[in-house]
Amino acid sequence: MSTCSQDGAHAARLAGLRALLARRNLAGCLVPRSDEHLGEYVPGAAERLAWLSGFTGSAGLAIVLADRAVLFTDGRYTLQAAAETDPALWEPRHSQEEPPERWLAAAAPGARIGYDPMLISGSALARFASAGLEMVPFAAAGNAGPGAERNPIDLLWTDRPAPPLAPCRPHPLAFAGEESEAKRARLGAALAASGEDAAVLSDPASINWLLNIRGRDLEFTPVALGFALLFADGRLSLFMAEEKLLPETLAWLGPAVTVAPPSALDDALAALSGRRVRVDPAGTAVWFADTLTASGATVSAAPDPCRLPKACKNETEQAGARAAQLRDAAALVRFLAWFAEAGGSGKETECSARARLLAFRRALSGFAGESFPAISAAGEHGAIIHYRASAGSDRPIRANEVYLIDSGAQFPEGTTDVTRTVWTGPAEPAPELAERFTRVLAGHIALATLRFPEGTTGPALDALARRPLWDGGLDYDHGTGHGVGSFLSVHEGPAGISRHAEAVPLEAGMILSDEPGFYLPGAYGIRLENLLLVLPTEKRGPADGPSGKPFLCFETLTLAPFARRLIRPELLSPAALAWLDAYHARVRNTVGAALSGPERAWLETETAPFA
Amino acid sequence: MSTCSQDGAHAARLAGLRALLARRNLAGCLVPRSDEHLGEYVPGAAERLAWLSGFTGSAGLAIVLADRAVLFTDGRYTLQAAAETDPALWEPRHSQEEPPERWLAAAAPGARIGYDPMLISGSALARFASAGLEMVPFAAAGNAGPGAERNPIDLLWTDRPAPPLAPCRPHPLAFAGEESEAKRARLGAALAASGEDAAVLSDPASINWLLNIRGRDLEFTPVALGFALLFADGRLSLFMAEEKLLPETLAWLGPAVTVAPPSALDDALAALSGRRVRVDPAGTAVWFADTLTASGATVSAAPDPCRLPKACKNETEQAGARAAQLRDAAALVRFLAWFAEAGGSGKETECSARARLLAFRRALSGFAGESFPAISAAGEHGAIIHYRASAGSDRPIRANEVYLIDSGAQFPEGTTDVTRTVWTGPAEPAPELAERFTRVLAGHIALATLRFPEGTTGPALDALARRPLWDGGLDYDHGTGHGVGSFLSVHEGPAGISRHAEAVPLEAGMILSDEPGFYLPGAYGIRLENLLLVLPTEKRGPADGPSGKPFLCFETLTLAPFARRLIRPELLSPAALAWLDAYHARVRNTVGAALSGPERAWLETETAPFA
Repeated sequence: MSTCSQDGAHAARLAGLRALLARRNLAGCLVPRSDEHLGEYVPGAAERLAWLSGFTGSAGLAIVLADRAVLFTDGRYTLQAAAETDPALWEPRHSQEEPPERWLAAAAPGARIGYDPMLISGSALARFASAGLEMVPFAAAGNAGPGAERNPIDLLWTDRPAPPLAPCRPHPLAFAGEESEAKRARLGAALAASGEDAAVLSDPASINWLLNIRGRDLEFTPVALGFALLFADGRLSLFMAEEKLLPETLAWLGPAVTVAPPSALDDALAALSGRRVRVDPAGTAVWFADTLTASGATVSAAPDPCRLPKACKNETEQAGARAAQLRDAAALVRFLAWFAEAGGSGKETECSARARLLAFRRALSGFAGESFPAISAAGEHGAIIHYRASAGSDRPIRANEVYLIDSGAQFPEGTTDVTRTVWTGPAEPAPELAERFTRVLAGHIALATLRFPEGTTGPALDALARRPLWDGGLDYDHGTGHGVGSFLSVHEGPAGISRHAEAVPLEAGMILSDEPGFYLPGAYGIRLENLLLVLPTEKRGPADGPSGKPFLCFETLTLAPFARRLIRPELLSPAALAWLDAYHARVRNTVGAALSGPERAWLETETAPFA
Repeated sequence: MSTCSQDGAHAARLAGLRALLARRNLAGCLVPRSDEHLGEYVPGAAERLAWLSGFTGSAGLAIVLADRAVLFTDGRYTLQAAAETDPALWEPRHSQEEPPERWLAAAAPGARIGYDPMLISGSALARFASAGLEMVPFAAAGNAGPGAERNPIDLLWTDRPAPPLAPCRPHPLAFAGEESEAKRARLGAALAASGEDAAVLSDPASINWLLNIRGRDLEFTPVALGFALLFADGRLSLFMAEEKLLPETLAWLGPAVTVAPPSALDDALAALSGRRVRVDPAGTAVWFADTLTASGATVSAAPDPCRLPKACKNETEQAGARAAQLRDAAALVRFLAWFAEAGGSGKETECSARARLLAFRRALSGFAGESFPAISAAGEHGAIIHYRASAGSDRPIRANEVYLIDSGAQFPEGTTDVTRTVWTGPAEPAPELAERFTRVLAGHIALATLRFPEGTTGPALDALARRPLWDGGLDYDHGTGHGVGSFLSVHEGPAGISRHAEAVPLEAGMILSDEPGFYLPGAYGIRLENLLLVLPTEKRGPADGPSGKPFLCFETLTLAPFARRLIRPELLSPAALAWLDAYHARVRNTVGAALSGPERAWLETETAPFA
């Protein structure tokens, strides 16, 4: 946990920001976690919220007023926000229980609040404006374009890192499954059919997917950062630092893709005067719509055209996902076999165990890095939903406690994300703990075994995974599942299995996580996560009913055993137990083939049938 | 089914409407089912859609263009809409699969479309306007107020019935549970806290609830129609035809309630110039917001302030609901016992059976009418989700078929709504039919036995009742549950258990139906419906988990056996079977006490334990 606030740095930063706000006659300002791409993982240069507050989670919004500074996070980060920030400076709040705009409208009705138009979406800004606040963009002196130093934090942050300039490379067709030209033609035709001349793309995942390129600008998401304009005829203008574009990449992009530096974006938008341009109101910084409108273009508010096609993986990507999960499973199973011996020895710590898992992964062919910061959490740390062990928080893993490991990898074939919770032993776990583990497992299985009619949305399915927990008076304060990209972001929209997810119908080819949990603050956390692939039921056996609607189902992609000692089989329904035994047999037969000796023996024992 | 179209009346009406539209230079117009109160049940004078099209369902929207006329209904009415309208005149469409505004924007892009501002909400109108249509209010010549003859249908409909003028009476405190003055004081204070000076109330259920009055202007909902303005100080202006207000009612309303005829509404809104007035954008006709804005008032778009408090029944209303359901159960159980003998005799028809049930209900003390048109449906008619047997459609109930009876009653203590599906015999039902019935029952029980944390919304629970059906490749094209009023409308917002319901958290005191089903067009329909009361878990046994959140649960209010012959107990989980046996024991012990002789004997047999 951060100790920076103790040296007064955060207090000084907050005071500096307040002085600049007062000079601009602002009552306060918004400091979001997001960068210019509104993404979840951001480069160091965009870590303004962490620099100001100390909070390092992947989602948050600070509101700084003259006499109060409030940090809004969601349920995954409430404990972490409290631990990382100085309570003398910051008040932590829960953004889903109390929307920030409602809080601000009550705390400072009608106040003049500054914001950076490159760091907030039009939808988010509109919520503040319709709460009656006077929202004032920074750099009101003119359109300064992306990267200009108009944000007061950028003035104060003198040792701010430079933006990343990692090389951008082709993503071969053997992994992508569809030529960029074909993707651009079909998305361009859809724009034309909607009467749109072009679309702004500001999400690097969209651009990297559409162009079949990948980069290394971010630690966990293999993208090259940039912006793009997709035209209805399939041409595309890419705005990306030239240093990143290798000659082979320029050749790969082909003649229908023109390349310019991000500083050319202003002029490119101005040239769209008179045109109808799609801008995603929720996923793109409001600066784009403002600039287009000022240029005389008509803004068409509609989702990023890449979002849905990117989420529906094609046959090549689906095969790649299966291959990636199987390869990754060998590392995780090796780790679990090692942990079964070493975990409770008292010699390992959260950080050393995490390093061991990473070492197993580094030995895998094609391993291209972790897909997110692995959560290696012993005992009470497991209750911090997005806990990240650091030098300050690391502790030995002890005998007879719960250990949670949530990790994932990037391979050119696909992205993985898996969570297992184990018991270090040697004593038997308390029956109540095992009962709670089994309820989480029952929730996981309830979703994994679901068949549902086409048209069903993710939010409608969230409660199915919670029911076994609800039956015991338990719940978890996060969504049940998120979309996962294909060698892209481990968190990908638009679909998700959460009450807060968009109500978009699930479609064949989508990959979603299934990760119910239970958290007892101060004691332990349980989370069990596999990735699921949405498929038509025809591929899994014919629908046997006359509903008239096609049905969809899930194929479980992830392959790793669930901790045998924490399962109380008598609490599972016969159908759930049958699924578990069949799944464990599949793990044994597939992952087991890559193992030998004690690792294989451990897997045989761990996956032996219950029934 | 309607045969009117055969005599050419509907063709002539449509032609007349088109002629009037052409004269006003309109490409088309909207003809909604709703009346000036945007309610579900409307007086004969407001049955414009039925007059024009022949469709008599309780929800629908016609769009009339010069060369096409389209009727949008939801899944409950697709079969009925097709049966009641002339296919040479009308195209039926599914409003949830294809939003009407999207269809219209594609069929007639940018067209001038007329609408009656007293018959459409601001939200609904905005959807058409943002689809790029030019929406033109009827009576553009001036603000003509409610009831003025500005709608072209009102000009054509020369034998339109007069508006109802039934007496409006006090609803005693023994049923209402809270003085109107107290309700008005707390709702007025909430308006003041939101910075609002007044609120428009256009939903008669809100007004009747708030003033503790009831009327008989509608056939199934015991309300007096009217409008009201609630002020922040608790005073209220009621706009209601003076003929309806008996002297005792005027005395009951007290001095803080002023009464004026509906024609005084224009002036009353004009007098709010400079004030901030709440108008429900989804539940109130757009005429109110337009008139207020034109008067110089500020419109605050927020829900009807009565909606949520009315939905959360107080202790008196909860006790009344239990009493009403128990009393009503005696009639339904008598009917079911009679039907067990007579149903398959071939001597009864859908209409005669329905009349028999009504006769049993008429014998109940306090019976104040049906709460909706009872659905008495044999065989294939059961697949028409809101089927209404008529002289033209009535048919004998035969041996060995499925019969569905969905009915409800109004009592001063509360409103009932119950559906049972039975088998006429004497042969055993096919195993597949019984399997499907059992899946519907399993879905019903899954919801009835649920415990869930506070903050959970109705849409999140819908899939829990569908899962046993989905497992068999089955589904139903309607919501799982709707809110139910207290001696008010049998369909009451804001909560509902449906993917289309508002995402409002369920709260203690709400009454919701639980009615999954399965429909095989041309063959049969199955639906099983009880009413559920939301309660804190403390009242049903302490929560046994450390979630930290209070949990809610359901108390089943409705008391009637589920058809024994259609249940395959081996397909229910042990927990579901235990619930069923306990429920049947409760029915036997409560309703049975009011019965004797063969009726009692039948109930004993029908509710004998399975396990």
